[in-house]
Amino acid sequence: MKIVMVGEAATHQHELAAALATPAEFVALPREAHESAQWDDQIDGADVLVAMRFKRSTPAPRFRLLHAPGAGLDGIDFAALPAGCTVCNVFEHEIPMAEYAMACLLEHQIALASIDARFDSDRFSQAYLGRQPRGELYGKTMLIIGFGRIGQAVAVRARAFGIRVIALSSRARDGKVAGPMDEAYTDAQLLEQLPRADFVVLSCPLNEHTRGAFGAQQLAAMRPEAVLINIARAAVVDQAALYDALKHQRIARAFLDVWYQYPAREGDQVMPASFRFEDLPNAFCTPHVSGWTHGLFERRYRLIAQNIDRLARGEPLHNVVAGHA
Amino acid sequence: MKIVMVGEAATHQHELAAALATPAEFVALPREAHESAQWDDQIDGADVLVAMRFKRSTPAPRFRLLHAPGAGLDGIDFAALPAGCTVCNVFEHEIPMAEYAMACLLEHQIALASIDARFDSDRFSQAYLGRQPRGELYGKTMLIIGFGRIGQAVAVRARAFGIRVIALSSRARDGKVAGPMDEAYTDAQLLEQLPRADFVVLSCPLNEHTRGAFGAQQLAAMRPEAVLINIARAAVVDQAALYDALKHQRIARAFLDVWYQYPAREGDQVMPASFRFEDLPNAFCTPHVSGWTHGLFERRYRLIAQNIDRLARGEPLHNVVAGHA
Repeated sequence: MKIVMVGEAATHQHELAAALATPAEFVALPREAHESAQWDDQIDGADVLVAMRFKRSTPAPRFRLLHAPGAGLDGIDFAALPAGCTVCNVFEHEIPMAEYAMACLLEHQIALASIDARFDSDRFSQAYLGRQPRGELYGKTMLIIGFGRIGQAVAVRARAFGIRVIALSSRARDGKVAGPMDEAYTDAQLLEQLPRADFVVLSCPLNEHTRGAFGAQQLAAMRPEAVLINIARAAVVDQAALYDALKHQRIARAFLDVWYQYPAREGDQVMPASFRFEDLPNAFCTPHVSGWTHGLFERRYRLIAQNIDRLARGEPLHNVVAGHA
Repeated sequence: MKIVMVGEAATHQHELAAALATPAEFVALPREAHESAQWDDQIDGADVLVAMRFKRSTPAPRFRLLHAPGAGLDGIDFAALPAGCTVCNVFEHEIPMAEYAMACLLEHQIALASIDARFDSDRFSQAYLGRQPRGELYGKTMLIIGFGRIGQAVAVRARAFGIRVIALSSRARDGKVAGPMDEAYTDAQLLEQLPRADFVVLSCPLNEHTRGAFGAQQLAAMRPEAVLINIARAAVVDQAALYDALKHQRIARAFLDVWYQYPAREGDQVMPASFRFEDLPNAFCTPHVSGWTHGLFERRYRLIAQNIDRLARGEPLHNVVAGHA
């Protein structure tokens, strides 16, 4: 097996090799090989290309399997792939992303780090006597837009806190959908449900239906004390409308982990958005870290290794998104 | 009904009055009335004293019911109470305390606020490309020492994150105990179980068995990467041993919300501990805020009002800890 790993994926060769039963030869290529043909002679004839993105303006080199080491396929130009190529992806990010989403909720309600930062033995007595009650997650309502793996992983955890979960899902029928929820509605009912939510979690895929779909009208339907958490893709939300809603405190807060632009390669300098969200006190900004854990990579590369072993044995692959199963 | 409310409780007269069916006359007394006889003429003949603490060196004024507006009874000198007095308490703090404990776990794993503080659009590209994976709560092991209301509320939430819960409880039999846990052992098995834990949560009552019971030996049995969360009472932990373990990084971190000394009244200046824990980078310190929520007071004063209404109707009271049920 010849396995070519590109960009960030190349830093995980050790995890992949450790989990692989099939003998393999590894080639590590820089991030630029996602879009540039410069290394195509090293890719050509590979069994597996492990890469999150693939774009070409020239004919593609030949490889049998493009295995994305993540879930999102928006970086792959399927038309540019070599003939007969199979594409697989992996998930597993729902676990860290749900942990991140719950951390956002608890940060909003408790702000633990800021309490610690103010703690001082000399001022302890005043701090203790002057404690101000905070809010609770218990009894709150969460609207989850997109009830796939990520939305359901958030829902399981939220419900353990006594949060009422309303799922928005195209699969909703008669107020219910499969999975851990209290109520479920279709996307057409979004505007009716938004005013009920204390927390709105965006965990839908980015596609032609969702791009820019969360805009001024949706933000206006949220309650002024409600909190938006975007762990989907930035482009689901109209950034000008979001900036405006936060600046004028029409919603209480947004936790933003996904952005409108990303650097394509080392040295690239891009702004994450057209507005400086981080200058707003009620925008909580993180650089796309919600799913970024050691556990994620261990689980993902174990699954990729199992798929490569299946490919070597001629068995059907798992998580096939295009090509032969 | 004559209802006397002391100290912090007096700030909740509105919640109590709003929930009470029985007509009532309210008297608000300062925090000092917990321990001083100076206001006893105003307490004498009351139906209900709502106070977290009660100490007297002189004969007590007469009242029928001492209703603590919290759970801990360590501030009440039962020998000093008037004859025939009933004592009741309330809980409800397990909800906010469990939220606080989960916030500690997520702060330890994600440190969300510090990521937000470093976010800058101009440095976004480097921050994104240089992301470092963090750990996950998923798959970790939590040892909960004291599996009462608080321990169980933590356990429900922790298990929803895929955390394995080991309960330490005097009620444990054959590796199990009633409640949301995976395994359970008695207190005698603490030292055997401590090395298994990623997170050790102290949620036991303070009594003659637990005072100082978590000391150098127990801290030494913890793993170097393990985290201690004390939401019980400070005195359960030997403070010199804890300071030493943290200073020499024999455990990774402690989240400390409970302290060795508290101010008794406005203007009191006491140090929370004999050591300045807040100077240690791996001690996370908060001034006893874990249970301090609006929801806590709403639920507690609603329950106290129901008990006072029962007293007025001559019905048995709930949550009686001493005297007539």
